[in-house]
Amino acid sequence: MTSIPKTQKAIVFESNGGPLLYKDIPVPQPKPNEILVNVKYSGVCHTDLHAWKGDWPLPTKLPLVGGHEGAGVVVAKGANVTNFEIGDYAGIKWLNGSCMGCEFCQQGAEPNCPEADLSGYTHDGSFQQYATADAVQAAKIPKGTNLADVAPILCAGVTVYKALKTAELSPGQWVAISGAGGGLGSLAVQYAVAMGLRVLGIDGGDEKAQLFESLGGEVFIDFTKEKDIVGAIQKATNGGPHGVINVSVSPAATSQSCQYVRTLGKVVLVGLPAGAVCESPVFQHVVKSIQIRGSYVGNRQDTAEAIDFFVRGKVKAPIKVVGLSELPKVFELMEQGKVAGRYVLDTSK
Amino acid sequence: MTSIPKTQKAIVFESNGGPLLYKDIPVPQPKPNEILVNVKYSGVCHTDLHAWKGDWPLPTKLPLVGGHEGAGVVVAKGANVTNFEIGDYAGIKWLNGSCMGCEFCQQGAEPNCPEADLSGYTHDGSFQQYATADAVQAAKIPKGTNLADVAPILCAGVTVYKALKTAELSPGQWVAISGAGGGLGSLAVQYAVAMGLRVLGIDGGDEKAQLFESLGGEVFIDFTKEKDIVGAIQKATNGGPHGVINVSVSPAATSQSCQYVRTLGKVVLVGLPAGAVCESPVFQHVVKSIQIRGSYVGNRQDTAEAIDFFVRGKVKAPIKVVGLSELPKVFELMEQGKVAGRYVLDTSK
Amino acid sequence: MTSIPKTQKAIVFESNGGPLLYKDIPVPQPKPNEILVNVKYSGVCHTDLHAWKGDWPLPTKLPLVGGHEGAGVVVAKGANVTNFEIGDYAGIKWLNGSCMGCEFCQQGAEPNCPEADLSGYTHDGSFQQYATADAVQAAKIPKGTNLADVAPILCAGVTVYKALKTAELSPGQWVAISGAGGGLGSLAVQYAVAMGLRVLGIDGGDEKAQLFESLGGEVFIDFTKEKDIVGAIQKATNGGPHGVINVSVSPAATSQSCQYVRTLGKVVLVGLPAGAVCESPVFQHVVKSIQIRGSYVGNRQDTAEAIDFFVRGKVKAPIKVVGLSELPKVFELMEQGKVAGRYVLDTSK
Amino acid sequence: MTSIPKTQKAIVFESNGGPLLYKDIPVPQPKPNEILVNVKYSGVCHTDLHAWKGDWPLPTKLPLVGGHEGAGVVVAKGANVTNFEIGDYAGIKWLNGSCMGCEFCQQGAEPNCPEADLSGYTHDGSFQQYATADAVQAAKIPKGTNLADVAPILCAGVTVYKALKTAELSPGQWVAISGAGGGLGSLAVQYAVAMGLRVLGIDGGDEKAQLFESLGGEVFIDFTKEKDIVGAIQKATNGGPHGVINVSVSPAATSQSCQYVRTLGKVVLVGLPAGAVCESPVFQHVVKSIQIRGSYVGNRQDTAEAIDFFVRGKVKAPIKVVGLSELPKVFELMEQGKVAGRYVLDTSK
Repeated sequence: MTSIPKTQKAIVFESNGGPLLYKDIPVPQPKPNEILVNVKYSGVCHTDLHAWKGDWPLPTKLPLVGGHEGAGVVVAKGANVTNFEIGDYAGIKWLNGSCMGCEFCQQGAEPNCPEADLSGYTHDGSFQQYATADAVQAAKIPKGTNLADVAPILCAGVTVYKALKTAELSPGQWVAISGAGGGLGSLAVQYAVAMGLRVLGIDGGDEKAQLFESLGGEVFIDFTKEKDIVGAIQKATNGGPHGVINVSVSPAATSQSCQYVRTLGKVVLVGLPAGAVCESPVFQHVVKSIQIRGSYVGNRQDTAEAIDFFVRGKVKAPIKVVGLSELPKVFELMEQGKVAGRYVLDTSK
Repeated sequence: MTSIPKTQKAIVFESNGGPLLYKDIPVPQPKPNEILVNVKYSGVCHTDLHAWKGDWPLPTKLPLVGGHEGAGVVVAKGANVTNFEIGDYAGIKWLNGSCMGCEFCQQGAEPNCPEADLSGYTHDGSFQQYATADAVQAAKIPKGTNLADVAPILCAGVTVYKALKTAELSPGQWVAISGAGGGLGSLAVQYAVAMGLRVLGIDGGDEKAQLFESLGGEVFIDFTKEKDIVGAIQKATNGGPHGVINVSVSPAATSQSCQYVRTLGKVVLVGLPAGAVCESPVFQHVVKSIQIRGSYVGNRQDTAEAIDFFVRGKVKAPIKVVGLSELPKVFELMEQGKVAGRYVLDTSK
Repeated sequence: MTSIPKTQKAIVFESNGGPLLYKDIPVPQPKPNEILVNVKYSGVCHTDLHAWKGDWPLPTKLPLVGGHEGAGVVVAKGANVTNFEIGDYAGIKWLNGSCMGCEFCQQGAEPNCPEADLSGYTHDGSFQQYATADAVQAAKIPKGTNLADVAPILCAGVTVYKALKTAELSPGQWVAISGAGGGLGSLAVQYAVAMGLRVLGIDGGDEKAQLFESLGGEVFIDFTKEKDIVGAIQKATNGGPHGVINVSVSPAATSQSCQYVRTLGKVVLVGLPAGAVCESPVFQHVVKSIQIRGSYVGNRQDTAEAIDFFVRGKVKAPIKVVGLSELPKVFELMEQGKVAGRYVLDTSK
Repeated sequence: MTSIPKTQKAIVFESNGGPLLYKDIPVPQPKPNEILVNVKYSGVCHTDLHAWKGDWPLPTKLPLVGGHEGAGVVVAKGANVTNFEIGDYAGIKWLNGSCMGCEFCQQGAEPNCPEADLSGYTHDGSFQQYATADAVQAAKIPKGTNLADVAPILCAGVTVYKALKTAELSPGQWVAISGAGGGLGSLAVQYAVAMGLRVLGIDGGDEKAQLFESLGGEVFIDFTKEKDIVGAIQKATNGGPHGVINVSVSPAATSQSCQYVRTLGKVVLVGLPAGAVCESPVFQHVVKSIQIRGSYVGNRQDTAEAIDFFVRGKVKAPIKVVGLSELPKVFELMEQGKVAGRYVLDTSK
């Protein structure tokens, strides 16, 4: 076993929107209920950009080490930890910890805990080489898993998988993925196929159409070409999809999904467009008996299942690996909307 | 057994909004799949007013006998009818019949059938002494039931009961009834109490508060007095109700219910305010993981259950009985918003 | 359109266990609620053997035309039928009709109706060229479907699909199929794979192992070789399967499934071994919190879904087509236990 | 705040079946994740007798302080505890703690955790004045609650409430309680009534009949008088109860419940009769499509709900309070089968 150093490399910022410093900081000590994870790879998510900018209603801790898609190896653990051993693989995810005592934690809805502690937001996250994580919430990753590839599963994968579960569909039913060709969308397509669903994708452009079909999608609606999107979707699915996952953050697309969804169908909201409002005409909502369901992030069980699908080879996120020190550039590309797929940081560089 | 006459009294209109004629018309003959019901009493619902006026998108048959809350006795039946005997009590309800062959009928969601045949709308209804009804959909009413009292259960009762089922709450959880003091609302309160729920009611005025409490409601929020409705509801229910039934047709009240509902809670839309839109901020919808569910009318199972609660004395609608011939006056009062409780017509007068 | 003849070929028996006569009988007339189906192909099920022998507690009609896996074309229909047109493809299945008025029919559990009318048992079935069927219950088969191939889906396919639904498993969970290499079992494996489940099969012999793997099964336990079946199953599934489908009618195998099923798991009983008793030690049943669920035959919805999986190419039953006149030989082979796969009768021969 | 003493009174045994010593022992120190509860009252359960005797397959710790229905006040807590404050009321229950990391804990099924730590069995329990408890699992009891009355809810109440939830019944449906007049049974009757169920009780004797009716039960079947129990139950419930809770540990009664349960109904096993086997004829199990479900003890959510029903006055266990030092006498009465209702120990005596 390699010894744990005293200091490590990390990306830190002192104030929201301030400089992103790649520098040496102390390696944190795990509390009795925590593990210390030697993060090998970390995905970069749009939420990390929000955390840095501080443009969400919830304040971040400062100074902050961001990141919440960290995959690595357990190198130390607190005295109370019984479910991880040194050498196990572990994942750092958005929900670092919760109170475990409120009504939401009691139901297993820990992400809805009012005391939720968030990696890379209220707790230093995965943009460092050694991060602490609450042992109860940390993700278990089977040994031998490719740690770079699994990183984006820890947030992006779990989130879309949870959204699909929230739709409560049965194998053989139709699901529409609005934004099917993007990073989240292409993961959603793969999970949906693995769950036995028939998948209709909505996005724009031939490249996305080809990607969609290569992932097992059945019908692609190109919004740049199709004029009657509602009609086309209802025709292709013989009455509308039983469920819709709105990965796209367009409010217009979301409201449209309430129109084309099948009678008795379920529209799932999962993206977080700032200030957006979902509008649904009441008459149609009632007579068609549809449901609009919000889906936040997955709990421990959702995470374990989402990782299991990945480990069994059912889903794969296209990634681009760069060094941790290059995070500022990645943020820049993100802000310019130039990121397709997922950037993953190698913390050794 | 009394013989079936050739003609009978009915209220008929020849054109939407035209004269409501109280006159003699032929007694209809049941088809092989139908029963003939000697309607003793019929409730009057707002939908009957819409049918007469013809102000809904769906056209009515013409001339039309309205009414879809008819309670009476089976006096004849078609050759294929096996589930009713002459002398049984039967109820005429909004859904007269459906195709039984489409995907919605297959799931028991017959009210959502695209071929749905509607009593008092596309099929002559209960504003006559003898009405035909599809035997599969007709409601079974135990012998000995008070037919005047049960009439409003057949639409109003079933509808609110279905809405409560749609909320999928567990005994001991909180449900808020928006519009708790009205006709539908006071039925909803009683069903909710019988289902083991804790009930918070929202309405205006001391009279409604007293009615609410007499029915077993636990907390009443008077919107004419309370300034911070959201805060007051969340405080009284220790975090917000687990479900909300929007019997009130106010769009503002509906949107407000998305705010005060508990995290993970369910908002049910059941009223049909013309042109209204339900608005829900996406961020809150996702992070609180709430659901907005449309609930239309009950199916055969819901109807049987709703009647069973009534028969066991768990719910009672306050009614006012007048003669069938007085329907025009009742419509007039309805249009003036002067109807509290439910009018029930005695077809013998 | 070809005209409907007055007489047709059929296999009839006058008394239980009596001669199986291949002869001319009148073509039946559909009642107002019935369709007349020109049966092209009919599967042969073990239940047909029981009906002929009359060794079940429930008496058959006599004389009887057996058969309940008939696939054909609608050639006439009663006056009340709205959900089938002449020329549509239709399937004759075990449940010919039900009262549609009892509590079970109201829930969509028509196979549990006390008045259930059974094809090839209490109603003349599919071992004839023209059979009547209740239009509500008759299966819809898309035009263009191979009618010989679809025949076994109508009973065998629906039954195992229903059993899988009864287990209420989630994609990614393990299901064990006890008797995986037989006719029902191999259909169950295919449905399970299409539903996103991981499948463990239990049966005997290399041939069955190969068949199992060719159908997408993941782990095969050969009971002729494996000494510690419980241990081997629990090891292969990392704690036991989440569900077990007991297609095998061995009481010992059924009781064993209560042992190897995962904690919180569900054991489904679907076969009907005469006089068998399912035994489960209470202590283990409670502490592991397992469930033993009986699954009978599918309803209209289950049937539509099971056919849809077939039509989309997800399941296929290996069949052997012979003439209707050869039914006595097929029964003989069945009694000798020599039937692997499904015999399908061509009614034109 | 009163200071915490160094020593306290407890009932301890050094070997299974050995002397039950009422003596002074050290007050334990809470670990970082634990609270220290000043136990005011503790119920006595049959399981405590088993723990003392050591006649279950699972070994106890030794020496052992038994008890798992302790109600008291938090007087100290470990550094990691965030969900309890000093002065809060807390309950000690059967499940003291679990790994929180296995698949069962992830699903909220902590009682099924293979590493489950059990109060009064593998962890010193509530037969002492000061007991430690895992803060995550300890029950929250609202301040002002009568601590003597609530004690039996912590195991007996939660267990029958969980069994009722396991039956997944809807308000208005029938539930049969086999053993309705006993300690567990009379709690089950009250919970069932509060959940909106119609309750049929099975037990022997007029005294139990009267108790049953006073608690809101609707139909009582006296097995000492009724000869055709199955017939009587099915008649009284118009076809059999939708669910059965087998509180009685008689294997014959359990098997009988599989006969009288309604088609599609659910039989719940909750008692743990040593060596008993539940037998169900497969034919009936399948054709009636019934389910036999094992129910163990409640999780955190079930516990919170069960306590809430108690706090709202919906359920009450008849208790007899004696001093902690009298536990040996209580065990004696239990062994003689002379305990009706629940003994509760006052730890100050």
